[in-house]
Amino acid sequence: MNEESILSQVIPKLSQGADIVVPPGDDCAAIDVGLDRLLLMAADQIIANVHYDKSTTPPEDAARKLLKRNVSDIAAMGGAPAHAVLTIATACKDENWYLKFFEGIAAEARLWNISVCGGDLASTQTENEVCSLTITGWVERDKLCLRSNAREGDVIFCTGVLGNSYNSRHHLTFTPRLEVAQFLSGTYTDTMMDLSDGIGIDLERMCKASSVGARIDVDKLPLRAGADVEGGVCDGEDYELLFSVPESKVSELISAWPFKELELTEVGVFTNPDLGILYISNTNNSVSYNKYGFDHFR
Amino acid sequence: MNEESILSQVIPKLSQGADIVVPPGDDCAAIDVGLDRLLLMAADQIIANVHYDKSTTPPEDAARKLLKRNVSDIAAMGGAPAHAVLTIATACKDENWYLKFFEGIAAEARLWNISVCGGDLASTQTENEVCSLTITGWVERDKLCLRSNAREGDVIFCTGVLGNSYNSRHHLTFTPRLEVAQFLSGTYTDTMMDLSDGIGIDLERMCKASSVGARIDVDKLPLRAGADVEGGVCDGEDYELLFSVPESKVSELISAWPFKELELTEVGVFTNPDLGILYISNTNNSVSYNKYGFDHFR
Repeated sequence: MNEESILSQVIPKLSQGADIVVPPGDDCAAIDVGLDRLLLMAADQIIANVHYDKSTTPPEDAARKLLKRNVSDIAAMGGAPAHAVLTIATACKDENWYLKFFEGIAAEARLWNISVCGGDLASTQTENEVCSLTITGWVERDKLCLRSNAREGDVIFCTGVLGNSYNSRHHLTFTPRLEVAQFLSGTYTDTMMDLSDGIGIDLERMCKASSVGARIDVDKLPLRAGADVEGGVCDGEDYELLFSVPESKVSELISAWPFKELELTEVGVFTNPDLGILYISNTNNSVSYNKYGFDHFR
Repeated sequence: MNEESILSQVIPKLSQGADIVVPPGDDCAAIDVGLDRLLLMAADQIIANVHYDKSTTPPEDAARKLLKRNVSDIAAMGGAPAHAVLTIATACKDENWYLKFFEGIAAEARLWNISVCGGDLASTQTENEVCSLTITGWVERDKLCLRSNAREGDVIFCTGVLGNSYNSRHHLTFTPRLEVAQFLSGTYTDTMMDLSDGIGIDLERMCKASSVGARIDVDKLPLRAGADVEGGVCDGEDYELLFSVPESKVSELISAWPFKELELTEVGVFTNPDLGILYISNTNNSVSYNKYGFDHFR
């Protein structure tokens, strides 16, 4: 049993209305509400001792991570966040925990102009802490980026560095790439996703959605301090952007790149689907990796 | 510590954008997206052995309850449901459980024309089952119903019968009062909420939001089989509508009421706030009840 297997069975059972422009399977759903822009909607959750170490993570930081994960999903579609609702299920009886958690949510929401406009609190009987957040956003139709738009020959890029997110606390301290995604979407790309489960599994999702293969140059993968190639491919929680650019726009993108502090790396190319997904290295032919990255059910 | 105390402290910290027409504190938030109709948004959750008995409740039924609770919130605002996203956190490794749960979600979503268009699955390390659902909907501006619209002298009604929801399994088998709410909103009332925590605590919320008092005639409370007055006031999970009607429209409402199988009961009247909330009985002056109904943190 794994997450992909379950989703592949249950998603087809869910009827989608005529207003659903992007159905389940991308970073967000996109909905035509009768305006020029589309409404985006996504949900994500954090669980104590799965997504953060409860003993070392202040509630404010866990809260910020929850909201930022969702902002990252909106960014990946080329959109800007708008509203959020939040549910918390915990056995916690410490009022201070809630106040600190909401301080984190409120502070992060202000940074991204998000109205946190509803939610629910409930007690669990067993020790646990599950916080779920739904985010909405808006995207102009000509800026909408999808996993399913990749074409053979398009050049694959990622932002930032990959791997070792958990130990380095990047998974708590990261900045969602909203500004970068706004720069890219519509102008340089229509094919983007955020890297949450590792480029290994996330690239496979993009290839599957687009019916293309990919060739990744392992030697070029930008690695965080403390990460080896396997970690860069599989660790997950990078919250960087994975996107592709037509070859004709690559040099323009590289020279226009305005984010001096943020790495922009060409990591490979989309290929014919028959070639599958290849990770090649000129320096180490025996490089091993687990393409599955982080699957929540493994 | 209780839910109201936490919410009263944290809600003011959450900045609301200019597009938020109804901020946190009602059954849903209402958002002006630049259309004639308003976007509604709410979130609710179910937890195993808190909101349903895991040993006796099929996953389909738990799933249906989750979606229906949210439909009930949309109905209470005078709206109609549109979209939903769902997160599930559980230690369950049984693929069949997920398939059954999503069968319930899909079947119930079809009944209400809801597109379940996104979500997330994640594993907990401890035994638990927390399912959170966010719903959106649409409401015409002239049908919008709020908790804060109650006026002194308006007559208080409820639909259906109250109490003994858990043991009777009403909490699983109920029908959200969407059709009834559509009949009422705009035409007979602009003041409505759904009864989820018991009329005791829910009426207090409405009175507080509207700065009014209330007088409830305990002898008139419509009780479910197996419920005494205290249960009718406090048990919660009724998922009926609590609403008020100007005195001038009461007889028109009663004669127009088209739902032959559903009780419509006049239970009291909104009063001057200085009078507080009074539960009176002509037959039993010593009637006791706990106005707090079901508070999730008690």
